Amino acid sequence: MSQSEEQQWKLLLLEALVKERREDAQQVIEEVYPYDLANWYGELGATEQERLLRYLDHERLADVIEELELEQQLEVLRRLDVEHAGHVMDLMENDDLADILEELPKEEVDRLLSGMRQDEALIVRNLLTYPAETAGRLMTNRFIWVTDESTIGETIEKMRDYIEYSETINYVYVVNQLSQLVGVISYRDLILASNDERIADVMDRKVISVSSETDQEDVAKMFERYDLVSLPVVEGDVLVGLITVDDALDVLREEANEDIEKLSASGKSIDFDTKPWVAATRRLPWLILLLFIGLVSGSIISQFEETLSKVVALAFFMPMIAGMTGNTGTQSLAVVVRGLITREVDKKVVTRLIMRELRVGLIIGVTCGILIAIIAYVWQGDPILGLVVGSSLIITLIFGTLAGTIIPLILHRLNIDPAIASGPLITTLNDILSLLVYFGIATAFISRLM
Amino acid sequence: MSQSEEQQWKLLLLEALVKERREDAQQVIEEVYPYDLANWYGELGATEQERLLRYLDHERLADVIEELELEQQLEVLRRLDVEHAGHVMDLMENDDLADILEELPKEEVDRLLSGMRQDEALIVRNLLTYPAETAGRLMTNRFIWVTDESTIGETIEKMRDYIEYSETINYVYVVNQLSQLVGVISYRDLILASNDERIADVMDRKVISVSSETDQEDVAKMFERYDLVSLPVVEGDVLVGLITVDDALDVLREEANEDIEKLSASGKSIDFDTKPWVAATRRLPWLILLLFIGLVSGSIISQFEETLSKVVALAFFMPMIAGMTGNTGTQSLAVVVRGLITREVDKKVVTRLIMRELRVGLIIGVTCGILIAIIAYVWQGDPILGLVVGSSLIITLIFGTLAGTIIPLILHRLNIDPAIASGPLITTLNDILSLLVYFGIATAFISRLM
Repeated sequence: MSQSEEQQWKLLLLEALVKERREDAQQVIEEVYPYDLANWYGELGATEQERLLRYLDHERLADVIEELELEQQLEVLRRLDVEHAGHVMDLMENDDLADILEELPKEEVDRLLSGMRQDEALIVRNLLTYPAETAGRLMTNRFIWVTDESTIGETIEKMRDYIEYSETINYVYVVNQLSQLVGVISYRDLILASNDERIADVMDRKVISVSSETDQEDVAKMFERYDLVSLPVVEGDVLVGLITVDDALDVLREEANEDIEKLSASGKSIDFDTKPWVAATRRLPWLILLLFIGLVSGSIISQFEETLSKVVALAFFMPMIAGMTGNTGTQSLAVVVRGLITREVDKKVVTRLIMRELRVGLIIGVTCGILIAIIAYVWQGDPILGLVVGSSLIITLIFGTLAGTIIPLILHRLNIDPAIASGPLITTLNDILSLLVYFGIATAFISRLM
Repeated sequence: MSQSEEQQWKLLLLEALVKERREDAQQVIEEVYPYDLANWYGELGATEQERLLRYLDHERLADVIEELELEQQLEVLRRLDVEHAGHVMDLMENDDLADILEELPKEEVDRLLSGMRQDEALIVRNLLTYPAETAGRLMTNRFIWVTDESTIGETIEKMRDYIEYSETINYVYVVNQLSQLVGVISYRDLILASNDERIADVMDRKVISVSSETDQEDVAKMFERYDLVSLPVVEGDVLVGLITVDDALDVLREEANEDIEKLSASGKSIDFDTKPWVAATRRLPWLILLLFIGLVSGSIISQFEETLSKVVALAFFMPMIAGMTGNTGTQSLAVVVRGLITREVDKKVVTRLIMRELRVGLIIGVTCGILIAIIAYVWQGDPILGLVVGSSLIITLIFGTLAGTIIPLILHRLNIDPAIASGPLITTLNDILSLLVYFGIATAFISRLM
């Protein structure tokens, strides 16, 4: 669908909603995608929103809700009466529904679930028992499985029966008498086999699966590595669910956002809709911590008050040295944080990485150090000042690069949430380090600087 | 496959390679995944690497090469003679192959392509004509299409013929006499239809496609939004190729890395294997630019030399104010850069976002400003100094937040590569801004500060 087509559909829908023409609206609804409807929903007035919800049948409404932002999802479910909401929730992906319900107080969850079919409600309750961000929470039970004693004909029969119910994935999973996952067969192979063959003779016994406790980041990695479109979830060897590739795409996006939150210490407010007050309170704890660390810089400078008051020109280079050390630390940090995702790290990799960054720090330090020494000399006409500034920058850039590399690696090793190694924290720590080095060297040369 | 199983297979393979036991090695090769073989390949000695390449059949070798890092891919292709390399390249995904060849000089591309089947070489050459990071470069021609006049039976017949050749995707695309894309049918629906039905009667006419020039980021977005597993590529309406979901996963990862490179100005070195010299030269241009901008801070301070030499205590708060302004700018920048990916921005969204960040800046500024005013007063015993530091921080935090919001939005609007709005650049610009405000206010109050 091109953008201009999209605009046309949108206008047609809007017109139909304003004029309360149910049939016209439903014609548009038929033609466009749930994502688009969800996108337009937010832009409608309250009356039109209410009409749109009324015109959507249960199934379509379930699809649209899945595409809405969390706040809107809650709002829509609250607008519907319990029975209507229940019918819609029956048709939603259970993992998406669990993510929504998790945000609600227990009484409201119970109220909403009471409108659902009992078996569906039970499945959702079960999903909610898995910790967030694990394979168990991503899985659906809407997929087709057969026992290894079935024939191809029976399998196709079962597919016909469950077709409305199952997600459009492309494999049938095979279990034995004990419900243990033993194989997989693609729809393609099903088409090509003859009806009386036994599944056990045609299926692929090499099937990749994950346990339900697996972290979602590892789940996404497996989709990437093995080019999967679906991944069965097991407990022991028993098949309990299936994760589809659309969840892996969402997880990749989420994990990338988390890394960026780490690097920028912005907290969980990487979106445009968070209220100012909420966004501010998420960012403030970091900023206040950094404010106090920044004061440490101040007290270091105050220790060197005598040096500084004798040679005020030292202050000119202070922000540059501190800034450069922070920048180089952030660069290394970014490399490490991203690298830790795609790579397993053992001792060999860590050692090689630290040696690499040491060399990078050396090259960067020497280049920038010599450059600034010349500039400082030319600007202030003092060769010793040039020497002090230049040698300080060499040292601080090497240490800054190493700090940006080693600190996140240590945190990773200690299994501490690497969010602590956020970009601004590294920057601020590097500030302190650079001021110590700079004023240390300057004080040593103070008699020659005056 | 669990980690301990993986270790066992790895050891078995290593032993077989060291003892030159071809059959044992091939048994392991059968059991494990190309990704694992690629992973282990890098850890082998040169002799064992050479043996592994020899033991792999063409098809398996093609799969393994696709999983290697770029440098290793080039090395492996160069190790094979032209004929052997040609057979392997015939079996590789054409889009992956194009990505490799792009890195080579023209003569080497010609030499390698000369070993391939003519038709395959032609397809690769054609792919190379599309700009990098567009839909055209991601597409494969290994998929199944039929004309809208075919029957279900004929379609299944065609699938049987091309099964080895086509990727394991799950739709058959339908074109008309003019090769224009007119519909799609899932393998699932093929299974459920009867053999003599016409494709045109069964197919779904609502089919999402992209043009070959579409940016890869938009391609990935479509996979996310519409939960696709494959996406046909058209020129005019003519079907020219197909993009599969594994490419979308790779693009998402790539684009996230690019954002992080922007925020950290680390350049394209977000991996552990880049040589120190290469990594350093990628980071240096930014650092040198930032060094010169940092000198601007210095010259601002030198303008206020008189103020500073009268009240040296002003220097104590300099790094804190500059750092905090940089931090708050980076936080806003991260929100905007990430938000621009998932959201279409129109005037309304931009205005709302700027107003939101203005409010966030106000809340953050007032909180931190009051806090630091009290601290400065208690520490230095001077209420006017507290007032100067506190009011400066309020103002710089508000401006810092706005700068981190507005600068990337303007660059985005001007279609300028937002890499320019990197985190360190915003930080350094905010440094300058904060020093101007701080010393400006301090100079105004200088008579009361002494």
